[in-house]
Amino acid sequence: MPRLIDYVEAGPEVRAVFDEIKAARGVADVNNFWKALAVDPATLRRTWESLRQVMAPGALDPLVKEMLYLAASMAAGCAYCSASHAAAARAKGMTDVQYGELLAIIGMAAETNRLAEALRVPVDAAFD
Amino acid sequence: MPRLIDYVEAGPEVRAVFDEIKAARGVADVNNFWKALAVDPATLRRTWESLRQVMAPGALDPLVKEMLYLAASMAAGCAYCSASHAAAARAKGMTDVQYGELLAIIGMAAETNRLAEALRVPVDAAFD
Amino acid sequence: MPRLIDYVEAGPEVRAVFDEIKAARGVADVNNFWKALAVDPATLRRTWESLRQVMAPGALDPLVKEMLYLAASMAAGCAYCSASHAAAARAKGMTDVQYGELLAIIGMAAETNRLAEALRVPVDAAFD
Amino acid sequence: MPRLIDYVEAGPEVRAVFDEIKAARGVADVNNFWKALAVDPATLRRTWESLRQVMAPGALDPLVKEMLYLAASMAAGCAYCSASHAAAARAKGMTDVQYGELLAIIGMAAETNRLAEALRVPVDAAFD
Amino acid sequence: MPRLIDYVEAGPEVRAVFDEIKAARGVADVNNFWKALAVDPATLRRTWESLRQVMAPGALDPLVKEMLYLAASMAAGCAYCSASHAAAARAKGMTDVQYGELLAIIGMAAETNRLAEALRVPVDAAFD
Amino acid sequence: MPRLIDYVEAGPEVRAVFDEIKAARGVADVNNFWKALAVDPATLRRTWESLRQVMAPGALDPLVKEMLYLAASMAAGCAYCSASHAAAARAKGMTDVQYGELLAIIGMAAETNRLAEALRVPVDAAFD
Repeated sequence: MPRLIDYVEAGPEVRAVFDEIKAARGVADVNNFWKALAVDPATLRRTWESLRQVMAPGALDPLVKEMLYLAASMAAGCAYCSASHAAAARAKGMTDVQYGELLAIIGMAAETNRLAEALRVPVDAAFD
Repeated sequence: MPRLIDYVEAGPEVRAVFDEIKAARGVADVNNFWKALAVDPATLRRTWESLRQVMAPGALDPLVKEMLYLAASMAAGCAYCSASHAAAARAKGMTDVQYGELLAIIGMAAETNRLAEALRVPVDAAFD
Repeated sequence: MPRLIDYVEAGPEVRAVFDEIKAARGVADVNNFWKALAVDPATLRRTWESLRQVMAPGALDPLVKEMLYLAASMAAGCAYCSASHAAAARAKGMTDVQYGELLAIIGMAAETNRLAEALRVPVDAAFD
Repeated sequence: MPRLIDYVEAGPEVRAVFDEIKAARGVADVNNFWKALAVDPATLRRTWESLRQVMAPGALDPLVKEMLYLAASMAAGCAYCSASHAAAARAKGMTDVQYGELLAIIGMAAETNRLAEALRVPVDAAFD
Repeated sequence: MPRLIDYVEAGPEVRAVFDEIKAARGVADVNNFWKALAVDPATLRRTWESLRQVMAPGALDPLVKEMLYLAASMAAGCAYCSASHAAAARAKGMTDVQYGELLAIIGMAAETNRLAEALRVPVDAAFD
Repeated sequence: MPRLIDYVEAGPEVRAVFDEIKAARGVADVNNFWKALAVDPATLRRTWESLRQVMAPGALDPLVKEMLYLAASMAAGCAYCSASHAAAARAKGMTDVQYGELLAIIGMAAETNRLAEALRVPVDAAFD
């Protein structure tokens, strides 16, 4: 079992980040990802601040942003991230049918990505 | 240079798929991906039909579907697919600002995906 | 352009490996892979000897071995290796139809691999 | 624990696919992969039909096809798929010695794939 | 050819980051990576600041940090990053022999990583 | 549970390698990786000998070598290898602060690797 740092055993730098996450998300405790990242307080701080900036309201809808994060995580084969961002997307309103369509895209993208690379397809001039 | 099969040298099975792609997309010629895939007419046919089914109108907006495909392709490190689906997303209305936000998500997801796996973070019970 | 070491500029350790490769394969010159690997003579030597051992005649047919190497290279997204092992498989008798079937498997495996990981499917007890 | 849909709780579309899989393979129940994929009946249906088409008898021996699928799955780092296709290959006659040779190829391919990419080896003109 | 934004065509936010990079590194122009990232000024700014923080003097020697970045980039199969961080490591004193040893480690890690995953090796209790 | 071969059930070829590993490392038993690899004695023997050669004293410090192996394993997303090489690096003196800096580099490299590939950044002429 990898090391997870709980609030009670955390130092002040880690607690400060945990407090910000809990406040921003309205949750009683942070996810395991943050407890694991707390082994390096500087990385914990930087990652949280970057994530908050990247996922802040912008030109894309919050649910779309979350689904893009989920798609990237699934394509990268990260089981933890696929589970956590699927949960986050559901919390933001993703329906079962939307999830099914996203899954179908992940599968097709994996297939065509691999074939395009295996065949060394040259980029069409029209794409740029 | 890998082998690309142009319409003029293609057999009837390949031409039939090329014709469907050109009609469905309203383009004069198919992209290099399809010309490369034409080395195996059965895979060309199946891939095109699967793609059409997966990308058909559904619960998700067509632009969102295209951006999810782009996100998965970028996360998988497929240069050709990143270029082709970025072009397709632009054609469906993706703005420069939206593209920038997507890029930021791809970068952050890569970072947190890798850290979650490196630290072997156990999936939170609340995710399921 | 990355550094490639040709026979004429190579030292005796590198030349010895190049000579073995040329003799074993009956070719006039080694592929670019070996010229690039020659930047580290010890890695060149160890890699060549390991490869020769792994690809030696055994319980699997030489063409099957070459196609397995090609499948692994395509699945790993290595463009150079996909090109070199496709050429080697053709030289060992792979037909266009067999290549098409291999391509189809690569595509399907990419799709089901990704979905199995995205869905965190637990391994069936019957598999072990 | 991710969601798995058993036959008894499945709707008619899912049951129809499960019945086809059980009949085609002569098994009493489907593997967890299919139970997980059942969250999206359309993807379940399309994936099963594509897989059946790709793995149908052809120019390559059925065991060779299964070993190619296994090689691609191992190279892609999919633990579930490595376990399921190893079991399938054994059921089709793969011996321990053949499995050992396949493993050796997977390892060597991973090493040479990575080095070829790290060194950005240009594709030899002779490969095309 | 992907879009690269040169200093002369860049807006003030991008120019400010380019100026910081040039000053910090004592170079006349920034690398293509930064010119490509400039399509999204916010991502350019955040990435540069994060990189500067991560690569700042610390408990690890600067050359070791650069070699770790190179190792991660090679293992991830990023050709551009492998080239840029190899150049950076050389500039910080990496010798040809050290580079050869790093390459050998990359190759071996790729092989054992893939085998450990293919065989689903359970983590030893002693590791935690 | 995958198959692990313990010393008591191993044949003479496997026992010989296990004995060498135990002697070289001064441990009472080998890690699960070697017990899993023992399904193919030839691969076990070759992998151990290659690893010993690659990790032998050289121009790079033993701890640096171990950290490079760890970085490559983390970047490749191998959970087992990340755990085993983190334990090995700790045994060779890696401190918590050094580990934190390594983690930060892994995260940043993942982010910039992915962005460089997604944007298809051309290699700067100055890198070669």
